[in-house]
Amino acid sequence: MIAAVALLLAAANPEPGEVLAAAPDSDWRPIPAGELIGFQTPRGTMVMQLAPAFSPAHVAALKALIFEKSFDNGAITRVQDNYVVQWRVRKGTKTAPIGPETAYERPETGLKFTPLGHSDAFGEAGFIDGWPVARASGRVWPVHCYATVGVGRDMPPDVGDATELYAVIGHAPRHLDRNLSIVGRIIDGFAEHASLPRGTGPLGTYESEAENIPIIKAFPMPADTRYEYLDTASASFQAYKHARANRGSFFVRPAGTIDLCNVPVPIRKAEK
Amino acid sequence: MIAAVALLLAAANPEPGEVLAAAPDSDWRPIPAGELIGFQTPRGTMVMQLAPAFSPAHVAALKALIFEKSFDNGAITRVQDNYVVQWRVRKGTKTAPIGPETAYERPETGLKFTPLGHSDAFGEAGFIDGWPVARASGRVWPVHCYATVGVGRDMPPDVGDATELYAVIGHAPRHLDRNLSIVGRIIDGFAEHASLPRGTGPLGTYESEAENIPIIKAFPMPADTRYEYLDTASASFQAYKHARANRGSFFVRPAGTIDLCNVPVPIRKAEK
Repeated sequence: MIAAVALLLAAANPEPGEVLAAAPDSDWRPIPAGELIGFQTPRGTMVMQLAPAFSPAHVAALKALIFEKSFDNGAITRVQDNYVVQWRVRKGTKTAPIGPETAYERPETGLKFTPLGHSDAFGEAGFIDGWPVARASGRVWPVHCYATVGVGRDMPPDVGDATELYAVIGHAPRHLDRNLSIVGRIIDGFAEHASLPRGTGPLGTYESEAENIPIIKAFPMPADTRYEYLDTASASFQAYKHARANRGSFFVRPAGTIDLCNVPVPIRKAEK
Repeated sequence: MIAAVALLLAAANPEPGEVLAAAPDSDWRPIPAGELIGFQTPRGTMVMQLAPAFSPAHVAALKALIFEKSFDNGAITRVQDNYVVQWRVRKGTKTAPIGPETAYERPETGLKFTPLGHSDAFGEAGFIDGWPVARASGRVWPVHCYATVGVGRDMPPDVGDATELYAVIGHAPRHLDRNLSIVGRIIDGFAEHASLPRGTGPLGTYESEAENIPIIKAFPMPADTRYEYLDTASASFQAYKHARANRGSFFVRPAGTIDLCNVPVPIRKAEK
């Protein structure tokens, strides 16, 4: 009898991994291969998913840079602990400036926002098509969670030209939201790069070019590359989110709440 | 005239670094050397500050383990990306169990709580004597920010015996608050260890003992070791916090709010 009750409790409070294992294939959505860029370094390949719905001009600029092979022989030049890893195109790359059309946020119109359902200091937290976002006054914007990729820039009104990219390797710097353009996220191969040696120069820059990590090449991922994300509007994602906020038997006191960036959207590599 | 106005605005909205540079010595507090442990590895020495005010039994147990040299020839056995680095004593170390006196939180009585002043989903966020904490119903508890050190444990009611420690290397896992015992934080030498190779086994464990990173030895830091933290009840800290939430000229849209774990308490090494 006791065993049966324990089983019932376990079923009522499954672990996030159990929820994912039980999610039907129909709750997983393919990530279009055309949204994927590979950055090859001596540590492996970082696979980046682009975010055209949020930063169309920067995504277009980045695609052009990849098309022109401008990131080939580029370099990772900065790794600041608990902050970002940053990389750039090959020196001498020329680009066109990107205008202020990029306001770092956009109207919600035409997008399906699924609320996180838990408090957020920066807006109303939620998800759109697999991306963590915040919302206020009918506008939405992507947020800086772990592995999020943004565009480096100079002082305002400069908005960056996508020749310098950074990815978050620490606690979510949410104060960067709506201040820099988010162009995507690393969905594979990030652990090998989040663990790069930290730079010892100002802001974590490598102090000499010899320390830089080469970007051997960057390229559109092959057309048969298959990754899938858990549909953030699905029942499975709701259950996953609930499980993240109300953890199972290991937890003495389930928090009953969860931070947006502690609900990483599940992404998996699928069979070709 | 325009230059003068710009200067005035800059003064009204200084960068966090400018606030710290201007903080008088009287706003910095010494960290007692008796609260400091060194963990020496091939990557250098991680300096840990203990948190006896919050987890007295675990801190006492950890001090005993250090006294007995039980962490000498210990090992880092797990590095899970965006989560924790974990290390343990030498194999075969015997310890006494720690009882359930550790409720992971304590009465606020006798402590000086300084509110963060910004929203937090898990409680009322603030600081006590240089530690980020949360508060509810007259009780306070330390929180899991970057570099926070906690005690690994088995399933409840086990509370751990301080032979396994973990430190946060990713987004703050606040759902662990009040579920594991926080015994301190790494205040120096963390960047070299947060960047260790991620383990490829379950939960980021290293798959073979050959991958483990040795703990060469662990020891009380010398009595003349001098670190200082910025008094979290001081005017300087208030200004620093404000600067973190309302960043200066680089920011198009200062957030006006800040997450507790994005206000890292400033700690500096002082002259001996």
